[in-house]
Amino acid sequence: MAAGFFQAEMSMLSSTLARSYSIPIRKTLMTFGFRIAVQRNPCPRIRRSRVAAFSSSPSHSRDFPIRGVEDVFVGYLFGRKKATEVAHVVWEQVIQKGDMVIDATCGNGNDTLAMLKMVMNDSVGCGGYVYAMDIQKDAIESTSSLLDQAVGSKEKECVKLFNICHSKMGEIVPENSRVRMVAFNLGYLPGGNKSIITVSDTTLSALKAAERILMPGGLISLVVYIGHPGGREELEVVEAFGSGLPVSDWVCCKFQMLNRPLAPVLVFMFKREN
Amino acid sequence: MAAGFFQAEMSMLSSTLARSYSIPIRKTLMTFGFRIAVQRNPCPRIRRSRVAAFSSSPSHSRDFPIRGVEDVFVGYLFGRKKATEVAHVVWEQVIQKGDMVIDATCGNGNDTLAMLKMVMNDSVGCGGYVYAMDIQKDAIESTSSLLDQAVGSKEKECVKLFNICHSKMGEIVPENSRVRMVAFNLGYLPGGNKSIITVSDTTLSALKAAERILMPGGLISLVVYIGHPGGREELEVVEAFGSGLPVSDWVCCKFQMLNRPLAPVLVFMFKREN
Repeated sequence: MAAGFFQAEMSMLSSTLARSYSIPIRKTLMTFGFRIAVQRNPCPRIRRSRVAAFSSSPSHSRDFPIRGVEDVFVGYLFGRKKATEVAHVVWEQVIQKGDMVIDATCGNGNDTLAMLKMVMNDSVGCGGYVYAMDIQKDAIESTSSLLDQAVGSKEKECVKLFNICHSKMGEIVPENSRVRMVAFNLGYLPGGNKSIITVSDTTLSALKAAERILMPGGLISLVVYIGHPGGREELEVVEAFGSGLPVSDWVCCKFQMLNRPLAPVLVFMFKREN
Repeated sequence: MAAGFFQAEMSMLSSTLARSYSIPIRKTLMTFGFRIAVQRNPCPRIRRSRVAAFSSSPSHSRDFPIRGVEDVFVGYLFGRKKATEVAHVVWEQVIQKGDMVIDATCGNGNDTLAMLKMVMNDSVGCGGYVYAMDIQKDAIESTSSLLDQAVGSKEKECVKLFNICHSKMGEIVPENSRVRMVAFNLGYLPGGNKSIITVSDTTLSALKAAERILMPGGLISLVVYIGHPGGREELEVVEAFGSGLPVSDWVCCKFQMLNRPLAPVLVFMFKREN
């Protein structure tokens, strides 16, 4: 695992180098015995997603084969795409292969799996890490089971599962980690015990931890479910937190349905690179 | 002008036909002596914008040559694109050549000009119409002047300017018109008299008129400036109106910056085609 972390750190270092200097788009470095593939992203913040590559096809049909960032955003506006789908395409704009990201509320593991696919660097086995946590043991088991079905054991090693409250995330992430994203799904575990919900106090602690460990150019992403008791209060806490972040360092915005009062609210807090 | 209206009506009729039946992508009809070009849009609600055609280029550079729907949405999230730019790319997803649209608050004319370019059908001279209105005479003069500079006299004829309050829009739009979009910029005229602002009462009347005259598949778009006295109250009226529209017929959503309390708020109310 130590080697894995070193590998991840080197990958990030070489990624930084790739962005700082004019080097070929794809360059393979041999450093300290680790073969590290560097995919230079010429525009790290405005990145074409993998799925967006398909959206250049002119053959939209009336069956709405929705693809890409454009279609997901527009589909959301027009009631044809869900908040979680918007969140995923936004993540794809931010996350780079080899990154370390955090799923603060892994639930049934769908987001963890999506993040794993975004950080996995096939050419080096893994290279990226997903730290996934949930206060419910059932959620950890569901996530583990989903990963067993969806990826190989080598890839699964890139996910670190923790049966803890998300307010403790600062305690399990290695010191000096460069965390690219912290994602939250706030509410209750779908299909689980609805009496166990995320609550305002611990969510605020978790947001403060996320703010502290997030790297510049990173993202805090929240899908806030508000249809249960306490949901609106939690949204208010999230909004107040985002509203209080300095505009010089953060861009915080909210997408909300007006005539679907129980629809989840999307909140993105982007930490500027400066 | 009567011939123009007939032409517009026929264009809309043929556009409807084109969407209802399987006819070739581009078909030119000769009807009643009018040559009407039909551009069939295979997916009218999720349409690739004209600028989006450029976004398939893989050559993003660090200079951020922002292009297309994808880049504007992502740029907005990351603090690099303005609310008005998001509004324009959303309009492009909805407006079709030959459409009738309304600029409810034409101000300095920038939005009117943008709409004119979206509805103009070069192959039939014009074909589409922009009804642009403003309660301030200065705004009408500024819009007229901008159009003189930017387009020819033939194109300018496709813009109908009215020095009236937007709450009166229902009175100047021909009966049985199929209005594809009504766009509002709420607040005061940039560079104008800041004591003259749109106010909640007339804005609510205007929204009710817009709801009535909008065709299915159409859009009410609002950029709500809230940095002046009364701005927040007006936003509340807009939100309450959108929240009250039935979800079976409307999709209403809001984009808002959290840590820039004076930043304009985007509201879109999309009328489903059903």
